[in-house]
Amino acid sequence: MEYPKPLEDLIVQFMNYPGVGRKTAERYAMHTLSKISDENLNEFASILANIKSRIFRCSICGHLTDVDPCHICSDHHRDSAVIMVVESSKDVFSFERSKTYKGKYHVLHGALSPINGVGPEELNLESLWTRLHDDTVKEIILATSSTQEGEATAMYIQRVLRNMDVVVSRIGYGVPVGANLEYADELTLAKAVENRKSY
Amino acid sequence: MEYPKPLEDLIVQFMNYPGVGRKTAERYAMHTLSKISDENLNEFASILANIKSRIFRCSICGHLTDVDPCHICSDHHRDSAVIMVVESSKDVFSFERSKTYKGKYHVLHGALSPINGVGPEELNLESLWTRLHDDTVKEIILATSSTQEGEATAMYIQRVLRNMDVVVSRIGYGVPVGANLEYADELTLAKAVENRKSY
Repeated sequence: MEYPKPLEDLIVQFMNYPGVGRKTAERYAMHTLSKISDENLNEFASILANIKSRIFRCSICGHLTDVDPCHICSDHHRDSAVIMVVESSKDVFSFERSKTYKGKYHVLHGALSPINGVGPEELNLESLWTRLHDDTVKEIILATSSTQEGEATAMYIQRVLRNMDVVVSRIGYGVPVGANLEYADELTLAKAVENRKSY
Repeated sequence: MEYPKPLEDLIVQFMNYPGVGRKTAERYAMHTLSKISDENLNEFASILANIKSRIFRCSICGHLTDVDPCHICSDHHRDSAVIMVVESSKDVFSFERSKTYKGKYHVLHGALSPINGVGPEELNLESLWTRLHDDTVKEIILATSSTQEGEATAMYIQRVLRNMDVVVSRIGYGVPVGANLEYADELTLAKAVENRKSY
């Protein structure tokens, strides 16, 4: 016997999430029906329906935010001379939790991956070049992942900036090779910033 | 730094689900923002908002359904002489997947648990007694979990039915002791039905 259609539809929706297989999706769907109050369910539905209009990319750095420019870009206590380039907003949240970095960020929303058709035009790079037009920026820290795509992206940016009057560095020791930044602990992330090396 | 409020709200909603901690909820929230299309997201939100009005309890057996009576209760090819009593609709779906049971069901939506304030009145039992008023039902198979609550529930029902002209049996060998029915494989469930024993 199959699940009633509305229940099956809900299961399929949950299966869109990373690491959620059929069994887990079924649990989530049954939990939705039997354990979540009507009020809570309506709230969840409304948050989902509105999340993309309430959270958008900062026009300066590309970080996900509910105000434009984002809290980091508009914070005058932070050092505007340093920009850390990361692949995703998740990485910004991770670095912020480590509480050691006081510069600004730039979020690429991806990494170069010719196989998957991701070239420089697909990344949030134009706005990075724009930020370098005035002379405030003295250093760019490349904090893309230590995966093949992340390394290729760092290499690409470093080449573009080669002849510009800006120090380009790559985060260093600390972040485990082949790992995703998302899973790095605060200490590792702090160490990685501290031990960054210039190209 | 904290997450922007709408994003934090979404994370909190995902944390309502079983086995979902803060880290997983953050992944789901970020995935919602960056990987799920607007169209898909609106569909998900609408399914969530409407699921409880589209899926309800069958007025005969209590099983979750989108038609009343449910497909199982209205299926005349199934044996109306046997009713299998289970704790939740999940268990019905599990037994149906094992494709060996051809009787009807009765879903209690819980198990007796005095500590948690769950007495017989909190369970879907009144409608079970009602179903026994006519003489079609010859056997009741108690398929509650082999947990303390499940055993207490089976014992309670067996006592109530003691003086009635109906065979009461408990599913037998096959279901691992202390385990939740939900995780039992098809073969184990089939075996459990086959080896049921009479009280």
